[in-house]
Amino acid sequence: MQFRARERSPSTRGRTGTLRLAGRDIETPAFMPVGTRASVKTLSSWDLEESGARIVLANTYHLYLRPGQETIRRLGGLHRFMDWSGAILTDSGGYQVFSLAELRAVLPDGVRFRSHLDGSEHFFTPELSMEVQHALGSDVAMAFDICTPYPCARDEARRQMERTSAWAERSRARFRELSDGRAALFGIVQGGVHPDLRSESAARLVSIGFEGYALGGLAVGEPAPVRWEMVERGDADLPEERPRYLMGVGQPEDILEAVHRGCDLFDCVLPTRGARHGTVYTLAGRFSIKARIHAEDPGPLDPDCDCRVCGRCSRAYLRHLFQVGEPLGPRLVSHHNVRTYLRLMEKIRAALREGRYDAFRRRTRDALLGTEPPAPAAPETPKEG
Amino acid sequence: MQFRARERSPSTRGRTGTLRLAGRDIETPAFMPVGTRASVKTLSSWDLEESGARIVLANTYHLYLRPGQETIRRLGGLHRFMDWSGAILTDSGGYQVFSLAELRAVLPDGVRFRSHLDGSEHFFTPELSMEVQHALGSDVAMAFDICTPYPCARDEARRQMERTSAWAERSRARFRELSDGRAALFGIVQGGVHPDLRSESAARLVSIGFEGYALGGLAVGEPAPVRWEMVERGDADLPEERPRYLMGVGQPEDILEAVHRGCDLFDCVLPTRGARHGTVYTLAGRFSIKARIHAEDPGPLDPDCDCRVCGRCSRAYLRHLFQVGEPLGPRLVSHHNVRTYLRLMEKIRAALREGRYDAFRRRTRDALLGTEPPAPAAPETPKEG
Repeated sequence: MQFRARERSPSTRGRTGTLRLAGRDIETPAFMPVGTRASVKTLSSWDLEESGARIVLANTYHLYLRPGQETIRRLGGLHRFMDWSGAILTDSGGYQVFSLAELRAVLPDGVRFRSHLDGSEHFFTPELSMEVQHALGSDVAMAFDICTPYPCARDEARRQMERTSAWAERSRARFRELSDGRAALFGIVQGGVHPDLRSESAARLVSIGFEGYALGGLAVGEPAPVRWEMVERGDADLPEERPRYLMGVGQPEDILEAVHRGCDLFDCVLPTRGARHGTVYTLAGRFSIKARIHAEDPGPLDPDCDCRVCGRCSRAYLRHLFQVGEPLGPRLVSHHNVRTYLRLMEKIRAALREGRYDAFRRRTRDALLGTEPPAPAAPETPKEG
Repeated sequence: MQFRARERSPSTRGRTGTLRLAGRDIETPAFMPVGTRASVKTLSSWDLEESGARIVLANTYHLYLRPGQETIRRLGGLHRFMDWSGAILTDSGGYQVFSLAELRAVLPDGVRFRSHLDGSEHFFTPELSMEVQHALGSDVAMAFDICTPYPCARDEARRQMERTSAWAERSRARFRELSDGRAALFGIVQGGVHPDLRSESAARLVSIGFEGYALGGLAVGEPAPVRWEMVERGDADLPEERPRYLMGVGQPEDILEAVHRGCDLFDCVLPTRGARHGTVYTLAGRFSIKARIHAEDPGPLDPDCDCRVCGRCSRAYLRHLFQVGEPLGPRLVSHHNVRTYLRLMEKIRAALREGRYDAFRRRTRDALLGTEPPAPAAPETPKEG
């Protein structure tokens, strides 16, 4: 992996960069659609290509349980399995072990848990996490960590951060043994919302040395000002020449703020999860396609969007699909929402390159958070063609 | 509407033809994917275009209830609503009124029923059915009929056939008043499985005069030999120069037999309904993608298929999607299944044109019904690329 970050402009800590992964260039800041179980929900690999996605996230815990990493390895790896020509980042499984599984015990060596699917018992270690991610053929693996919840008392946050640091070292060692030099390993900063613990976490990770660094344990319920303070701390603590990944973030307005504070990579389930409930993302705010106001609206979801759904389908049709429960509705809104996130990233990169990011951020945030409901997308006559 | 049927070959009653509907040429025999509620389940209009579909079926009863035909009319009609560039046939709503709604009363003028959705009361007449189909902008409307169930005593079947004949006449009259000459109206032969009643039904419809004729009340549970006898009866009773549509049929092997007996048009929910349950159609038989045997199969669903799913996705991946319940699974199998049905029709037309239909029918039927489970699609090494 190579990462080349361009100089920051004076008015923002935001930056553009290029992440080279196994021969693929990914322009940063970048958004990774989430393909938890080797599928970005409802979307095909050709939809993702069309959307402009260059990297997706997949989930070590889920794929370890089903279909199993050895199955995917025998089938040629996750890229071939999903027929995905872009890059893949896999999370370490830590988050899901703590949030989904029935936890049995956190031991010095790893975590004993029962599968949320069938109750079967498993023991995940930093070494096993590396082995699973290696078998999947991940381009970016994540160190096995404990995601500290919010709130978390200082002592407990320290214990978890220290264990995360120890596991990061073991992750690094096992990754090195397995690696052919093509894949990257990112360490994950923890420490809850305690600035000194987070700085200590970052320092320990940097001394181990990773190709990139993630900010973990955020977007888990903490107040926004606290989150941004922690992100700024991470920006100060982490080396400029490495990419920073803010895990699980977030709403478009959150991404704007995080870029402003030096983050390069993002993932979030919102564009696809929201789509299943009829939430449409645009760069002028989100709305529910289920609302009565759209029932006879011949205009597209977003007149500024270049996706195929906006080119071909009316709000009225999409609302109808949701009203009657047709599975095409969530699919088409997912398609649009993912493209919207990727268009946001394109606009962010252009604004950064052109030295106008701070103005862009403020204007876009105001548009996103405007309290006005979005106007009907088009005059009330049917569109041509 | 124009229809030009080519001469039959001596060994079969099967025939090719061209149906011209509102400037679109549809080669027959043709299969119509079913888009009940203005959506062929899980598939976009661009998927359907890619599959080679030229005509789809939509449902008057469902669209009358939601979103309402006036909404669709105001939005420019069903073609624009669905963004579908091909032709559309709408059924009359009769079948759903009798099968889905809570029936209140069959009166001489029409049918009083309660919506299966909210219990609201409605009165459907032949005239209203024509008005709804006209508002939808259907290319082929169907006369409002009573679909006789199986079994049905002769007296009752006669009463229903006579009412269907009277309603056909009223459908024709109202259609004529509404028509600008672009759309076609088909009459529906009923009479249960009583040959003389069916012949009488056909004669009455022919004396009214329709652009095409449908064989109704079949594929509702009757034994196959009885069904084929009724289809042959229809072939003998109906004018050569009009298209014949066998409603609701069916499995690929049924379509082969129906074409052999002179049918030109088909519709069936099986390719999409089956896909939701993991049933994969191929021209060498159907199988469940959920079966364990596919778990590590790197080959496509059907090595003979030219669809995008077969070009890009392995059986192993598709099985995984079903195992974990990802909505992409039903979507991709629907895509493949619809293409399989349309490929079957392409092969049927080629065999008819080349005077080898009877041999094709026998060979394909044997392949479809072979008791051998389909072999793994490819050798057990990962495919290239």
